[in-house]
Amino acid sequence: MSAAGSFGARHPGRVVFIGAGPGAADLITVRGANRLAQAEVVLYDALTDPALRALAPRAQWLDVGKRGFGRSTGQDTIDALLVHLAQRHRVVVRLKGGDPSVFGRLEEELQALAAHGIEAEVVPGVTAAIAAAAATRRPLTRRGAGRSVCLATAMARDGPRAAPRSADTEVFYMAGRQLARLGRQLQAAGWAADAPVCVVSRAGWPDQLASDHTAATLGEAAMLHAGRPTVVTVGVGALPVAPKTAPAEHHLPRARAHAA
Amino acid sequence: MSAAGSFGARHPGRVVFIGAGPGAADLITVRGANRLAQAEVVLYDALTDPALRALAPRAQWLDVGKRGFGRSTGQDTIDALLVHLAQRHRVVVRLKGGDPSVFGRLEEELQALAAHGIEAEVVPGVTAAIAAAAATRRPLTRRGAGRSVCLATAMARDGPRAAPRSADTEVFYMAGRQLARLGRQLQAAGWAADAPVCVVSRAGWPDQLASDHTAATLGEAAMLHAGRPTVVTVGVGALPVAPKTAPAEHHLPRARAHAA
Repeated sequence: MSAAGSFGARHPGRVVFIGAGPGAADLITVRGANRLAQAEVVLYDALTDPALRALAPRAQWLDVGKRGFGRSTGQDTIDALLVHLAQRHRVVVRLKGGDPSVFGRLEEELQALAAHGIEAEVVPGVTAAIAAAAATRRPLTRRGAGRSVCLATAMARDGPRAAPRSADTEVFYMAGRQLARLGRQLQAAGWAADAPVCVVSRAGWPDQLASDHTAATLGEAAMLHAGRPTVVTVGVGALPVAPKTAPAEHHLPRARAHAA
Repeated sequence: MSAAGSFGARHPGRVVFIGAGPGAADLITVRGANRLAQAEVVLYDALTDPALRALAPRAQWLDVGKRGFGRSTGQDTIDALLVHLAQRHRVVVRLKGGDPSVFGRLEEELQALAAHGIEAEVVPGVTAAIAAAAATRRPLTRRGAGRSVCLATAMARDGPRAAPRSADTEVFYMAGRQLARLGRQLQAAGWAADAPVCVVSRAGWPDQLASDHTAATLGEAAMLHAGRPTVVTVGVGALPVAPKTAPAEHHLPRARAHAA
């Protein structure tokens, strides 16, 4: 590393974990953008929008290469890099796609920093499930029938997971392959064959794709979304919102709303 | 309404739903801030940070008064107001605390707009569960033991809900009362008496409070968080992250990381 700054190991800096949001650069929070502007070094994932670099043009940007939900730089190496850099810079930013607390491997990196007494801050971000709901205008919770939403990853490493049906709406973060297998798992877990499933890949990016299926026909989505990070929404939250006649305008005078 | 602008009902505008984030104004997304700056009218909830007004100082701001997870302006009235205003203004912003797609009653408002052919856009935001995780530096997902997270509201209107234990981590959005009842429900649903529970009220605000409990002792949290919107995290995601010795720095030369 040739990145040693003017602060030695006896003056450790801090690490700011920032959720970059799911894609397009303007889905980062204002706080995240402001913290990024203070960074001397930025460790980023492959999923991060290159346009975010404009927010920290003088920082050193290091690609730690997590692509999709796989990874190419080992977690131990990222942990060690964070410690190393925080001992040599005032502000190190760890920029993660989506939100750091949801499938972001934040735990391991916090553990490594804590072991060295390095201060950490976490700036939350928009997670992919929520970005997909916004982009498709399909709320994850619905009146009456949609009171809970569960976020999970499909395809755990120790083999197919039972994925029991546990909430009114379930959202799976996964690579855009093996959708047919997920469809079979959903039915085995108690979802009906005709349960609605909405698949969105690259949620929040300009080239986002969305398609509608059922648990039984989910395999048909595999080709469309192949090779892309994908969010699969199952249950009532996957349904489009149907138009409903609004109340007549004579209800308005009773509103408490007022110009503030 | 005396707010009629220069556009008549034959030139309807559009409604932009924006997630303001859970509290402090700088947790809105950059896109949300930019859209807000274009608003002619803003309908907002009581939970919105007043500092957000600086982003749209010339807009008309209408308080529709949802407080906590209750509400004071009827949903039908809000729906009708949105339609009425969108028929008279180019850009109407519906600013919601947290994220609109998660416990935001977005469905009803989208239905009303669709019935009148009014265009809607949804800009996602940081939901309270994720803000609480960031503020307490407790990731909602953990390696191995924490692969799924479920978001729910406690205390459904039709009486106590079974709230079956369904995920490694569950997060309940609720008012800061009746925590003792939730604790009993959790144990009835299969959580151990000593299951970790982290309670955060006013997540993301400067006066945020956080406290640690177990399912059996959750009732003790009621006084501290009374009268405040609260996020209750149960399970592995409620635990603080323990320090762990990081790998030695001689791992670094194998990193693929490079100055970009």
